[in-house]
Formats: sequence, C-alpha cells, structure tokens
Amino acid sequence: MNDALAAWAAPRITAFEEALLGTFPDALPATLREACIYPLQTGGKRVRPLLTLAACESVGGDWRVALPAAVAVELLHTYSLVHDDLPCMDDDDVRRGRPTVHVRYGENVAVLVGDALLTESFAVLAGAGYAPSLAMKLVTELARAGGAQGMIAGQAFDIGMGGPVRELDPLVRLHRLKTGALIRCAVRMGGLCGGATDLGALDAYGDAVGLAFQVHDDVLDADQDADEGGPPSFVKLLGVDATRLAAIAHAERASTAIAGLANADALRALARFTVERSI
Amino acid sequence: MNDALAAWAAPRITAFEEALLGTFPDALPATLREACIYPLQTGGKRVRPLLTLAACESVGGDWRVALPAAVAVELLHTYSLVHDDLPCMDDDDVRRGRPTVHVRYGENVAVLVGDALLTESFAVLAGAGYAPSLAMKLVTELARAGGAQGMIAGQAFDIGMGGPVRELDPLVRLHRLKTGALIRCAVRMGGLCGGATDLGALDAYGDAVGLAFQVHDDVLDADQDADEGGPPSFVKLLGVDATRLAAIAHAERASTAIAGLANADALRALARFTVERSI
Repeated sequence: MNDALAAWAAPRITAFEEALLGTFPDALPATLREACIYPLQTGGKRVRPLLTLAACESVGGDWRVALPAAVAVELLHTYSLVHDDLPCMDDDDVRRGRPTVHVRYGENVAVLVGDALLTESFAVLAGAGYAPSLAMKLVTELARAGGAQGMIAGQAFDIGMGGPVRELDPLVRLHRLKTGALIRCAVRMGGLCGGATDLGALDAYGDAVGLAFQVHDDVLDADQDADEGGPPSFVKLLGVDATRLAAIAHAERASTAIAGLANADALRALARFTVERSI
Repeated sequence: MNDALAAWAAPRITAFEEALLGTFPDALPATLREACIYPLQTGGKRVRPLLTLAACESVGGDWRVALPAAVAVELLHTYSLVHDDLPCMDDDDVRRGRPTVHVRYGENVAVLVGDALLTESFAVLAGAGYAPSLAMKLVTELARAGGAQGMIAGQAFDIGMGGPVRELDPLVRLHRLKTGALIRCAVRMGGLCGGATDLGALDAYGDAVGLAFQVHDDVLDADQDADEGGPPSFVKLLGVDATRLAAIAHAERASTAIAGLANADALRALARFTVERSI
C-alpha cells in the first residue's frame, strides 16, 4: 500500500478488526468459539472490507455505518476459504503460514466452523441496527453473491462440475463467479450503506477490480504454477506478460468507472493496490 | 398421521413441495442445480414446514403467507443433514433409502450443496416479498437457530467438542440445540408470519414439541442402538419405557402450552403425531 492508502486504511482496519473479532461472543461450546475465531485472525489484507468502507465513503457516507456490512462480507469470504481448504476440496494444509482449520481442529470441526461463519454473516446484517429496508437489501446482495448463482457456482466450475476449463471465456466466467461476485458485492453493499440509489458506477468498478484482483493473483502464483498439471490460469493461457497487462487494464477500467463519484480516492488507490501488491 | 391431520396437511404439503422444489432455478452449472435439488426430494414428513404453517394459522394467519418461511426452514434443515452425513461427520451412506449426497455426487459437491442450501435459506426470506421489518425478524430467527448458539452448537456437542455426553442434562441440552432450536424457530417464524406479537405460547410449544420429537426418535432408534458403542441416547440413560413416557409427556406439555390460542387444532395434532409416528 502507498502511504496515502495506508494512512486512510489504518483507523478503518483497527475498527474493522475489533468488530470482526467481536463476533461469536455466545458460541457454544467455548472450543467452537475458539475454532470460529481462528481463521478470522489471519493478518490478511482485508481487501473486501476496505472496498466496502471505501465504497460507502465514495458516495458521501460515513464508513462506520458500513462496518457491519464489511464484517459480514469478511465472514462469508472466510467461510469459503475454510471449506475450500478441506481435504475433499483443495486439500490445503497451510494458509498464510498457519495450519488450516481442519489441520488445526479436525475436518468435522472445519465443516462446522464454515457453516457457523456463513450463518453468522447473515446474523450480523440482521443485528446491525440498519433500517429494515436497507438490511434486507444487504441480505439479498450477500445471499446472491455467495449463492448458487455466484460464489458457489464459481466453486462448482472450479471443481469441474461444468466440464474442464481450457479457454479464456470460461476462465473469466469462473473467476467472475468464484471471486468476482463477492468483491462486487462488497462494493455494492458499501454503496448501499452510504445511501446510494444508483449503483451503476460502483457495479462497474466492482466487476473490474474483481477481475484485476484475480488476474494479478495468477501473476503472483505464476512461479508455483509452472507445471502444466495445476489449475487453469490466465498465465497459462496468455503468458505472464500479457496477464500482467490485463490486470493493469482491469484496474484502470475500475478507476475510470468511478470518475464521476465525489470521494473516490480510496477506491482508486485500492484498485491500484490490487495489481501492485506482492502477496 | 390421523385422518384429520392428513386432510389438513395435504393441500399445504402440495403447495410447500412446489415452492421448495422451485428454488435454485438459476443455479450454475446445471449439475449443481440437480445436486442441490436431490436432497430436497426426500419424501420426508416435512414436520418443520408443517409446524410453521400450523403456527401461522394458530394465531389467525393465512398459511400461504408462511410458505416462504417454511421453505427457508426446510432448506436450512436439509443443509444440516447433507453436511451431517459427510464422511468426516456421521459418515452415512444412505438417507431415506437413497444414497446420500456425497455418495451420489462426491464429497466436494456435498460440501457445496450444503453451503448453497444454507445460503439460499436466507435468500428465500429476503426475496419473499415480506415487509422488510418482518423479513428481518425472520432472518434473525433463522440465523440464531441455525448458528453457533443453536444448531451448530448442538452439532459441536454431538461431535464431542464439549466433552463426552453421559448424563441426562447435557443430553437434553445437546438436543435442545441440535434439533430443538430449529423446530422452535419453525414454530416462531410461523407465528411471526401470522402477525403474532406475543410468541410466549408458541415458544413453549416449540420447545416441548422439539424435545418430544427427539425423544421419540430415540425410541424409534432403540433397536439399532442396542450396542453400547453408539451415540448417547435417552433410551440408554432411561430405558425404553421411561423414554416413551417422557416423549408423551413432552407432547402433552406442548399441547397444554397452546391451550389459549384460537386455532390450534393442527398444532395439537402435530404434537401428537411427533410421538405416534413410526418413521
């Protein structure tokens, strides 16, 4: 992150982490609560919640209003990682340098933890004190982005349910669903919390920044994916240089989309960050 | 079911099944949609949705208003079965005479199907056209009953996260959470859809009928559970005769709780049914 973005992000991250780790105060038994909080303490970049807060500000809202929405997005994102890491899915033992939930607590607990995080994402929206009409819009957005027309559809394509993914268009569709839908949702929810009635610009931004994020991820993963046997990727289809250019093009498309918004500096900086980050 | 209950239930079950199987019209890819619908086509008793519709009518409401709530409850119930059947949980290959989802479609698909059913349960409430304030109450009820202070807590105790369950009180707590929370929620949501402002009687009914249901399940399972190695059960702790009596006592407690409601015949018949059924 550049200095201006880091300075903007610092107080927001602090407030967000506090809100996020305050979920599950009443989980039973205490060991379940511990296991639910474990994957939330990642030291991650928190890109999605920052997008929610920045989108809220971009339409003139107070970012504090969007905090519960940001927490809900991160809970849903984290559940998807916990289930995605399971032995029957990607079978990953390590995430961000720590044992994954099923390695640390057992596979059955990891299934429950994912289920709990997903359920809680909706509980947070319902319990945030939002006006009911706003809360319902947010629940609708999150359920659509996370559901069988969104993220879960992307996971289904990723595990081969729609057949092998060998060309660019199906790969773009896969990522628009698997990672893009929730990133776009994060942006849209921020706009709704900020009182936006027209989500057109934020929608275009969210779509573009979601693709920029994923395409840049493929660049970062290029070294590990050198073998032909790994999952399909933009680098394998386009080569690393063209993939890098594509990521930048998507990020610039994102910035262009929000040119008309009043207070879009943070959104612009986040778009740049998605294609400049090294992790 | 006795004749009066069966006659009451028939048109409601028909409408309910149609609404339930109409979920996931837009799931991607088509194979995911098929896998999501598979566990919903169970030929099951549909006790929870019938409780929702009956509770709505008991407070003077039209059962059609409660249909989306009944669908949401059944979606959440079904997700819990799909995940509960997984090899890392109960490892069940057969449910109601058919291969379980992971046997039929693979373990990774079963994880996704459960996630999709859970997500969709909230989408259904948000998209039902309820007044936003009612919709938010329903989302809150469902998330609480299904979450880490409800059903998932019950699952956690069931897989031993709270230590071994060897006595009556912990076993009652386990079942109040694992099956009782959602049954009570089904009743409460019906009451809310019917416009009830005081849920006290329905709440007491839901708690009692939930225990009646589970205790009677233990009676039905008594033959299979004859070995000492199986899960803890009321029959093992109390013996089969005392367990049968306890189930009847809970069902009668349920009926007593709703003595003051206007139109409680169906709820009373359902309480009786929970302890007279043979499956």
